[in-house]
Amino acid sequence: MTKRVAVLGAGPSGLAQLRAFQSAHNDGAEIPEVVCFEKQANWGGLWNYTWRTGVDEHGEPVHGSMYRYLWTNGPKEGLEFADYSFEEHFGKQIASFPPRAVMFDYIEGRVNKAGVRDWIRFSTVVRNVEYDDVTETFTVTVHDLAADRVYSETFDWVVVATGHFSTPNVPEFEGFGRFNGRIVHAHDFRDACEFTDKDVLIVGTSYSAEDIGSQCWKYGCKSVTVSYRTAPMGFNWPDNWQEVPLVLHVSEDTAYFQDGTSKRVDAIILCTGYKHYFPFLPDTLRLKTANRLAAADLYKGVVWVHNPRLFYLGMQDQWFTFNMFDAQAWYVRDIMLGRIDVPTDKQALLDDVQEREQREVADSSTRYAVLYQGDYIKELIADTDYPSFDVDGACDAFFEWKKHKAADIMTFRNTCYRSVITGTMAPVHHTLWKDAMDDSLEVYLQN
Amino acid sequence: MTKRVAVLGAGPSGLAQLRAFQSAHNDGAEIPEVVCFEKQANWGGLWNYTWRTGVDEHGEPVHGSMYRYLWTNGPKEGLEFADYSFEEHFGKQIASFPPRAVMFDYIEGRVNKAGVRDWIRFSTVVRNVEYDDVTETFTVTVHDLAADRVYSETFDWVVVATGHFSTPNVPEFEGFGRFNGRIVHAHDFRDACEFTDKDVLIVGTSYSAEDIGSQCWKYGCKSVTVSYRTAPMGFNWPDNWQEVPLVLHVSEDTAYFQDGTSKRVDAIILCTGYKHYFPFLPDTLRLKTANRLAAADLYKGVVWVHNPRLFYLGMQDQWFTFNMFDAQAWYVRDIMLGRIDVPTDKQALLDDVQEREQREVADSSTRYAVLYQGDYIKELIADTDYPSFDVDGACDAFFEWKKHKAADIMTFRNTCYRSVITGTMAPVHHTLWKDAMDDSLEVYLQN
Repeated sequence: MTKRVAVLGAGPSGLAQLRAFQSAHNDGAEIPEVVCFEKQANWGGLWNYTWRTGVDEHGEPVHGSMYRYLWTNGPKEGLEFADYSFEEHFGKQIASFPPRAVMFDYIEGRVNKAGVRDWIRFSTVVRNVEYDDVTETFTVTVHDLAADRVYSETFDWVVVATGHFSTPNVPEFEGFGRFNGRIVHAHDFRDACEFTDKDVLIVGTSYSAEDIGSQCWKYGCKSVTVSYRTAPMGFNWPDNWQEVPLVLHVSEDTAYFQDGTSKRVDAIILCTGYKHYFPFLPDTLRLKTANRLAAADLYKGVVWVHNPRLFYLGMQDQWFTFNMFDAQAWYVRDIMLGRIDVPTDKQALLDDVQEREQREVADSSTRYAVLYQGDYIKELIADTDYPSFDVDGACDAFFEWKKHKAADIMTFRNTCYRSVITGTMAPVHHTLWKDAMDDSLEVYLQN
Repeated sequence: MTKRVAVLGAGPSGLAQLRAFQSAHNDGAEIPEVVCFEKQANWGGLWNYTWRTGVDEHGEPVHGSMYRYLWTNGPKEGLEFADYSFEEHFGKQIASFPPRAVMFDYIEGRVNKAGVRDWIRFSTVVRNVEYDDVTETFTVTVHDLAADRVYSETFDWVVVATGHFSTPNVPEFEGFGRFNGRIVHAHDFRDACEFTDKDVLIVGTSYSAEDIGSQCWKYGCKSVTVSYRTAPMGFNWPDNWQEVPLVLHVSEDTAYFQDGTSKRVDAIILCTGYKHYFPFLPDTLRLKTANRLAAADLYKGVVWVHNPRLFYLGMQDQWFTFNMFDAQAWYVRDIMLGRIDVPTDKQALLDDVQEREQREVADSSTRYAVLYQGDYIKELIADTDYPSFDVDGACDAFFEWKKHKAADIMTFRNTCYRSVITGTMAPVHHTLWKDAMDDSLEVYLQN
């Protein structure tokens, strides 16, 4: 096969695509030449921690939104690779909410074993992608940042796996120009210790707000005030934690809220979400979607309906993560290998998208959303040789996790789950999350 | 004239180019269509203050490196527009070291008067520039961020005026990954009040280090420790300010220096300079230069020697600023208007660059550098109708300023200079710089 595929990004999604091709190759299939372009100097995407914020050593926007002391906010049993279990990697079962360094080690383990590192061109950012209707190929223009050289190559397919938790959505509130403390988006949050003894205002109510607030609490901030637009998160927060309506404006040192209350604060952390952002794509190829389960314009959630030679991985709002990226990557691989046909009638592609959208909005409950995404994974893996696994069991883990969080938001990470890949129960971790200040890999694995 | 010119950036350099063309048009000349692309929502470049850091509301790297409470660090008499004096703008002479808001007002005043705002397409970032040898035109591809639309247009000339104080040079020191406090480059420094009562480590010895350290001191930091690579700045610093050799590594809360000493610090501010960075230019058009008086590959400091239809403004290391950008913009304008010929022999262009480089390195003194750049300005304005002014007088102002700084780094902004444009002496400011906490335009102008 003389075909070529460009994979943009070497995070969990891009690495899934590499592993999918390597797996087929290992089984004797002829595969295209795979070239993966990665902006960072190492793989792992968001899991590749950097202390840097803003722009990186080359002047490019920092990809990482990862902060120190982060532990997974859902049980690892919901995201385990079906083809590479935690037990295979660590030689034993480990506790259910691993810190970042442990997760990075796990992600890296699978692709080290697969031997795909030399498919990746690191420190290389994609500048432009153009499609030629006549030759039916893409010209991908990249900037080798280390060599400071711009060059272009031609590909038959392009897989966009650049993630959607890297470009912050940063709203402005009146008075931000005169506030004396730090104003930082979750994307640039790095170390909760910076906020020890501080009164912290958090804007937003999604996972970043919940977790960054919890980090600040764990590392001794004076107080957490969370400002919500629609509704409070409503967990049983610690005594020095309050939820208040939307911030209206701020002065030099005080935030004023919609209910007429105010609070003197030292810092403002904007946990206001991320944007799907693809500055390297022209209008005809660029995904524009809300962060939802049924992403816009993607047949089967992965095929760009306006040009089925272009694929997107992991662009959905996510209950499932790694194993969903795998399901997508295997599916996309099999399209390229000719094992799965994409309808040639564009209307069929559009109908598929519409059906997914309609089904998503039919019920707004969390339970429905988890099951919806579980069904999506089952749908994809049914068509490929990705190892089938107990998706329903993973959904059950999510339901149990939601209960644990509702019971006590500061203890849910002390609970244990059963692997749906190996069937093994995770051990109880040796230290409660709130007391585990050293979250290095070495210490975490001491069970 | 049916020719078209693209001006990239609407900061002081880009606005100088617009004003240069408007001035010629006003005098009856036929001028090309001028289209200026500006990433920000307003003009002024670095002088357009934003509280934002990292990436902006659209996901693009924030251009601004400006911080609150910044006053010019050199006398305004060294940068005054020869065609638009401070007295013309404010209706009176004002003190010599205006704060940011005053400077922005002044910059804006000239281009408001010129009526060139509708030449600018705001919130539009340049993605790519390609040159076609056959048609001898540039295709400029831009992203209209507000409309989220990418489009291309064709131009006969391109003027790069995007500045070189926006892309930070951010070195890594051992231990940055475990330091508990904030690590921030000067580019993302916004408000000294964030560092009140803090022990601050500043890395670097150039203008950012000197001025950000001084801001932190003025706004009540506990101590300033400045780490130098080559030599200390050597001013008469306040008691809570020390200069130490290069930082070798940091722990969670302490920095360790080359001389064996260490210092517990709360925050690290990297004043380690900026990079010339043009991610929108291919290798054949992209300037690669050190920050020096004789920028590489630019004939007369402005014409790209490898394609004389491409120009760069303001890419030099700078003693002079606004009036140098003006001198360059008028010169570049006159090349496009056919009033000035660029040699067709490339060797002549290269010889010009080499001559400038050799002359720059002939003497390493500050005095020589100031005079060198003053001579450069005189050289350019001699060939255009930019109003000639007393460049030697401006050089003298710089020499006097250097003496004031050497005498007392915390009082030099209380001194007054004579305008080389109008001949008027600046008034003594009503408040000493160190005591002037309200530096709004309204308060500054109360002389």
